[in-house]
Amino acid sequence: MKKDLVKIVTIGGGSSYTPELVEGFIRRYDELPVGELWLVDIEEGREKLEIVGALAQRMVKKAGLPMKVILSYDRREALKDADFVTTQMRIGRLPARVLDERIPLSHGMIGQETNGAGGMFKAFRTIPVILDIVKDMQELCPNAWMINFTNPAGMVTEAVLRYTDFKKVIGLCNVPVNMVAGIANILGVEEHRVTMQLQGVNHHIFATDVFLDGMSVMDEVVERYANVKPEDVLAMKNFISLPYSPAFIRGLHAIPCPYHNYYFFTKEQLEEEQEQFAKGNVRGEVVSRVEEELFELYKDEQLDVKPKQLEMRGGAKYSDAACNLIASIYTDKRDIQYVDVQNNGCISDLPDDSAVEVACMITADGPKPLATGEMKPTISGTIHMIKAFERMVVEAAVTGNRDLAVTALNMNPLCPSDHLANIVVDELIEAHKEYLPQFRGK
Amino acid sequence: MKKDLVKIVTIGGGSSYTPELVEGFIRRYDELPVGELWLVDIEEGREKLEIVGALAQRMVKKAGLPMKVILSYDRREALKDADFVTTQMRIGRLPARVLDERIPLSHGMIGQETNGAGGMFKAFRTIPVILDIVKDMQELCPNAWMINFTNPAGMVTEAVLRYTDFKKVIGLCNVPVNMVAGIANILGVEEHRVTMQLQGVNHHIFATDVFLDGMSVMDEVVERYANVKPEDVLAMKNFISLPYSPAFIRGLHAIPCPYHNYYFFTKEQLEEEQEQFAKGNVRGEVVSRVEEELFELYKDEQLDVKPKQLEMRGGAKYSDAACNLIASIYTDKRDIQYVDVQNNGCISDLPDDSAVEVACMITADGPKPLATGEMKPTISGTIHMIKAFERMVVEAAVTGNRDLAVTALNMNPLCPSDHLANIVVDELIEAHKEYLPQFRGK
Amino acid sequence: MKKDLVKIVTIGGGSSYTPELVEGFIRRYDELPVGELWLVDIEEGREKLEIVGALAQRMVKKAGLPMKVILSYDRREALKDADFVTTQMRIGRLPARVLDERIPLSHGMIGQETNGAGGMFKAFRTIPVILDIVKDMQELCPNAWMINFTNPAGMVTEAVLRYTDFKKVIGLCNVPVNMVAGIANILGVEEHRVTMQLQGVNHHIFATDVFLDGMSVMDEVVERYANVKPEDVLAMKNFISLPYSPAFIRGLHAIPCPYHNYYFFTKEQLEEEQEQFAKGNVRGEVVSRVEEELFELYKDEQLDVKPKQLEMRGGAKYSDAACNLIASIYTDKRDIQYVDVQNNGCISDLPDDSAVEVACMITADGPKPLATGEMKPTISGTIHMIKAFERMVVEAAVTGNRDLAVTALNMNPLCPSDHLANIVVDELIEAHKEYLPQFRGK
Amino acid sequence: MKKDLVKIVTIGGGSSYTPELVEGFIRRYDELPVGELWLVDIEEGREKLEIVGALAQRMVKKAGLPMKVILSYDRREALKDADFVTTQMRIGRLPARVLDERIPLSHGMIGQETNGAGGMFKAFRTIPVILDIVKDMQELCPNAWMINFTNPAGMVTEAVLRYTDFKKVIGLCNVPVNMVAGIANILGVEEHRVTMQLQGVNHHIFATDVFLDGMSVMDEVVERYANVKPEDVLAMKNFISLPYSPAFIRGLHAIPCPYHNYYFFTKEQLEEEQEQFAKGNVRGEVVSRVEEELFELYKDEQLDVKPKQLEMRGGAKYSDAACNLIASIYTDKRDIQYVDVQNNGCISDLPDDSAVEVACMITADGPKPLATGEMKPTISGTIHMIKAFERMVVEAAVTGNRDLAVTALNMNPLCPSDHLANIVVDELIEAHKEYLPQFRGK
Repeated sequence: MKKDLVKIVTIGGGSSYTPELVEGFIRRYDELPVGELWLVDIEEGREKLEIVGALAQRMVKKAGLPMKVILSYDRREALKDADFVTTQMRIGRLPARVLDERIPLSHGMIGQETNGAGGMFKAFRTIPVILDIVKDMQELCPNAWMINFTNPAGMVTEAVLRYTDFKKVIGLCNVPVNMVAGIANILGVEEHRVTMQLQGVNHHIFATDVFLDGMSVMDEVVERYANVKPEDVLAMKNFISLPYSPAFIRGLHAIPCPYHNYYFFTKEQLEEEQEQFAKGNVRGEVVSRVEEELFELYKDEQLDVKPKQLEMRGGAKYSDAACNLIASIYTDKRDIQYVDVQNNGCISDLPDDSAVEVACMITADGPKPLATGEMKPTISGTIHMIKAFERMVVEAAVTGNRDLAVTALNMNPLCPSDHLANIVVDELIEAHKEYLPQFRGK
Repeated sequence: MKKDLVKIVTIGGGSSYTPELVEGFIRRYDELPVGELWLVDIEEGREKLEIVGALAQRMVKKAGLPMKVILSYDRREALKDADFVTTQMRIGRLPARVLDERIPLSHGMIGQETNGAGGMFKAFRTIPVILDIVKDMQELCPNAWMINFTNPAGMVTEAVLRYTDFKKVIGLCNVPVNMVAGIANILGVEEHRVTMQLQGVNHHIFATDVFLDGMSVMDEVVERYANVKPEDVLAMKNFISLPYSPAFIRGLHAIPCPYHNYYFFTKEQLEEEQEQFAKGNVRGEVVSRVEEELFELYKDEQLDVKPKQLEMRGGAKYSDAACNLIASIYTDKRDIQYVDVQNNGCISDLPDDSAVEVACMITADGPKPLATGEMKPTISGTIHMIKAFERMVVEAAVTGNRDLAVTALNMNPLCPSDHLANIVVDELIEAHKEYLPQFRGK
Repeated sequence: MKKDLVKIVTIGGGSSYTPELVEGFIRRYDELPVGELWLVDIEEGREKLEIVGALAQRMVKKAGLPMKVILSYDRREALKDADFVTTQMRIGRLPARVLDERIPLSHGMIGQETNGAGGMFKAFRTIPVILDIVKDMQELCPNAWMINFTNPAGMVTEAVLRYTDFKKVIGLCNVPVNMVAGIANILGVEEHRVTMQLQGVNHHIFATDVFLDGMSVMDEVVERYANVKPEDVLAMKNFISLPYSPAFIRGLHAIPCPYHNYYFFTKEQLEEEQEQFAKGNVRGEVVSRVEEELFELYKDEQLDVKPKQLEMRGGAKYSDAACNLIASIYTDKRDIQYVDVQNNGCISDLPDDSAVEVACMITADGPKPLATGEMKPTISGTIHMIKAFERMVVEAAVTGNRDLAVTALNMNPLCPSDHLANIVVDELIEAHKEYLPQFRGK
Repeated sequence: MKKDLVKIVTIGGGSSYTPELVEGFIRRYDELPVGELWLVDIEEGREKLEIVGALAQRMVKKAGLPMKVILSYDRREALKDADFVTTQMRIGRLPARVLDERIPLSHGMIGQETNGAGGMFKAFRTIPVILDIVKDMQELCPNAWMINFTNPAGMVTEAVLRYTDFKKVIGLCNVPVNMVAGIANILGVEEHRVTMQLQGVNHHIFATDVFLDGMSVMDEVVERYANVKPEDVLAMKNFISLPYSPAFIRGLHAIPCPYHNYYFFTKEQLEEEQEQFAKGNVRGEVVSRVEEELFELYKDEQLDVKPKQLEMRGGAKYSDAACNLIASIYTDKRDIQYVDVQNNGCISDLPDDSAVEVACMITADGPKPLATGEMKPTISGTIHMIKAFERMVVEAAVTGNRDLAVTALNMNPLCPSDHLANIVVDELIEAHKEYLPQFRGK
């Protein structure tokens, strides 16, 4: 990898997150000398990109680094000879997210960006675009790594692995690093001393072993997590929302991720979301308001650092995770990170060619998953179920097969009935039709 | 196998179904000459056994066959040198079933004898008894086959396969034969011309191919099933209760079994059961009344045939399935039947040593599953999920591990939340404590 | 399947075996009414085809059946609307076989038609032709079954399964039926009472269970086979050539097939073949002389039955096996036969998509393998090794990759060294170059 | 792991290698502060242990380190509270090795310490002793790691994994580090820059990818290795003995290990060993003479460093590999090393519970294998074959089943015939009977 200066291309560069990423690159300049950072967006996003891009340029200038920040609306021009391509775009922007959430909720079904109906339609909108980007990369920068943060990150990775012969794709999520932080908190130790063995797929992972300074402390972690106090839960947002029963945690002998709440507190989550729905406060709506405020801040020409308020946007640690990943590939660091990659036997009872989210040693040749063996029955059923859901969604995203979309949704435990599956699929296809050419005329 | 006269032992002989079984043996006497039929029950069931046993004896007498019907309360005496042992007992009798159904429903959770909380507790009561019977068989009739109809038949088979070294166990269910009947109905052909390729586990199977006179007619069956008319549904009870959407059926490209309603019409099923709950009409309550009437009929000393009313009891074709299975083993018939057996690669992405419900060639050496290859993603998730649930339930049944029971229930999509999982498990352990020694003192 | 009259196309119709096949169809006319039998050959085989074809026509005439025997040199014309296509051609005819055998032997390596170097080059000549026939069938008779007897039958089947999307191919070999005969002989019972569980690939199979009237008699068979007397060996040609040690048979607890001699009596087999080599008596040379005599007989216009001498040609029971297979598919007979088919989990530790030779229930939808579970370590190593060899050979046959050919031969235990592997591959490529266009210019 | 001072127990401490190990610990004292090094041997080895032990004590004294070197003939006393236990004993000493080599050779079969008949009998002598040591460790130092260098290291590891519930065992071999050195030599780079992806089992591994500074350079390595010059081969002993053909290496697209010579140059190796046999120069005989000289040197009370001559003993880099492994566990170093561990999916088509030799990240919790996916057909057959051989040998070692021993040997390609397998097994059982109690009276 090592070459003099690194060229990074960020697709969806107009995102409100970009300042985080820029800050990450600035902070790591010594080990990861970014020569060019191309922020790419589509014409419709010009206003935002210009605001964010200007802020990024001010940040770099303040840091006094020879890093060029280039704004572009021509993806192909930007990709030429890139070393890393990060993808963080949102097809249909936040209004599409609001529809993903509100339409299912209007029928009593959990609407959420990466689980169930919402995640399925985000995949439908995103996957065709990602496959196009891959095609461009194979032509213009075949040796570059694609680092995808776009949700649903697991399905996007699966799509690239199954529908292209491009293998240099890595899915990235901030959930694992937040789990590390939460577990460190529970143990009362510093984060960097904690590592995990993960089994699962994006947003559906379990820590099946936990190590402190490399030694397993799983029994202690399980016992502490099983007995976590409500006041500690508050301190651990991004990790625990509703505390599970001690019996469940002990029976699992594994640490679930925050997104498991949708599946194991389905009733409570649905009630909460229905309340938000009633008040116009579904996540997409809240985020839209936060974003608006952020862009107001970004416009301030005096601002030349990442504003504190960005941290409330959610997505904590995302950009750290991304910058660490890129830096470790660039420097062949061989540290442990948690990413979405081809399974290759890592979880021995999942298909070799599927994407999984696991602990990997990060090398210049990319992530090498640490083998974990079989899943225990306590977690295997639910992981297989989501993996099958993902595979159906990916296939439907590529083929535009509505029957398969209905079947996929039916197979997701968040869907209460076949009847509603049909209604919700139809309404979402209609609502997003502009972004779903593959479903047209079927 | 073939020997002069066959000795059959029926454990739970006092069941209201017994006359069906007796009729089945009478009808097949030419190919399956039953010399002795031992009806075994426990002391508490003496009254019922005496009624049913007397009817059985009248039936045999009327048929003019040299078949001895022997009533026994001494299981070990009965098992000596048996050729086939059928198990159809209900630990805790129908009142326990009513609790299995009503307690979950009282918390808004589907209560059903073989799915979710109800099936789990039926397994907890049954498995220890079955393992005891196996121990007796290994000593007293090691070459006999155990044919188990007791629900949950899949978990019972799994328990014997995983927790004993006795391999001559076969689980039996009437669902597959009813599916054949339903499909024949849809195709407008005679049942005997239809065979299926099955993938799945007991009460959670899909016909992934259908053959008419041995040739695949799957595309046609899927199309007809997708468009089945409501009036045809009525004619096909035991096969379809609520008709699925055409999209779901086409997306699956497989025929689900009736019990899938719980998972793909969860909302509608729950509503219906809650109504039954309110009226004192849960299935166990209805069946209790039917049984009472049946035993009144059975007492009639003039009665010497199976009364017509028995057919309404449910369990259509159960005894036919059982008698056919026994006859095919005895005569090495090598026909296709659908039973619960050790997988051995038949479904290549399920564990070799798990129980599956599949099409088998029935030989004198027992059922030989016809290999089916991998499951498609459309059905693999839900089947893996139920198989994992089964494995947890079986382990909890053997160990009395309450944490695992809670985890198992949590992992079942019929359970709406961890909170309720704990409540329902605790109430059911308490309600059934007499029959759950393994959970005591934990 | 069932239709009024069956059309069969035999590619390589000029073979000396054809009269056996014709006799088989005549004998089974009642259950398998062959309306047309097309004997197809290439122009170079015209003389032989005319001799054999005339005999076939006399045989049918004598039998008084309305079966047309049609000779053709136009494969595509013949294939039109066929129901079954049997392939029994020998690319390069017997002279090529002699080379397959003599060239390796000249370097101290076993030369044999289906094992090692000889089988590899027979595959190289045959597979491209078979793939062409498949292409024609997909166009001209897409519902027909291809029944391939051409050696190496396992690799030919693997090639069709992996390199086409045609799934109606069945490989057929007379080894399993001869094993049944041998085992029946050992047990002193009639053949039809014996069935086997097989694990392995063509010419490399083990009977891992044996059934008499459907019941396992494996322990007895192993013990008898371990102690088989030399005089019985003689009576069992086609089954045992050199008797294995009792320790080996007991350690295996399985019955090897005759071709295993090459691997477990490598030294003795090599010595024997080297002697034959010296005398001009390698198998291909012997067979050439037998064939010549046979064709002299066939020319006799008085001859209107299969001549007795054909039986000495070897290949005992081949045509019976073929006719039985076709008849069972046609009549949906559902009996057990041993054929080469896609694994689909039947042997759970071999790839699902590889060809295996196993016991199948033969239905109108083709053979359905009976699941066998994992292979024991006693046989798994050698079977995996041959399967890997087959996969390399098939790939090299399709791609013409000489490096892979050398590697494949190196990986076969019959090859004594890398050095010789290179020499033998080069000499055989040169010797057969007329039939190996895929290796040209590489 | 980290605690103040480390206690290491070396079983077979009287080995001529011990000074290497001692030197390794001295050199790494800063990162691995060994407080006590117990050298344990049996009474029969007292003379050697005293010589070696005295040298070790002089070496430590010279280094001026507070490391106690303790000699012991009481294994249980030594094991108490150990942190690491290294096992390097040779049951039957070198005379047994000579028999392992000469007896097979006397029948024209390769006699070699870890392949074929020789390795099998070394396993038969060693495995029962290792299982005894494990039992002691479970009682006396249950948290210690067993680091086994005793050959056959793969089978010993497999035996512990399959026949005990002790999981803290690691097999270690110097072959992988010598391959790294050889590859670095070929590339003309420093060793520390090269890492490999391995697939295989001990003494039967292939580098299926090679990385320079973390980036794959496999194509270049294959091309260079395929064209390695004879003069370079000489410089690379311990890596290449006989150079393979370019075709084989390109076809493999993998780098074989030196021990593959036995399988791919069987003829040449056998000829060479037969010559050695004739001259009384089989490896065991040569080594015996070298050892004698070494012990003469060791006796010199002036000697207080590892003598240069030890390097000629063979086993280059063994002690470095061992010390590095122990240090990396102790310090949770997370570097890549190549060891024998439980597969756990690392090679996805080998059993999860078998031992494999692969690249691992070494942590305080032991080695974590980097997942490699499936084996390609080019290497899978031979690896499966050796793994099956290993499993049979391990089972026979534990049970003393002579039939299985014969079958195992038959299944090894180095064995030319069943007939010889029986002879060689019997002669070796007789020759080693003192050390093979498990085979007595069978």
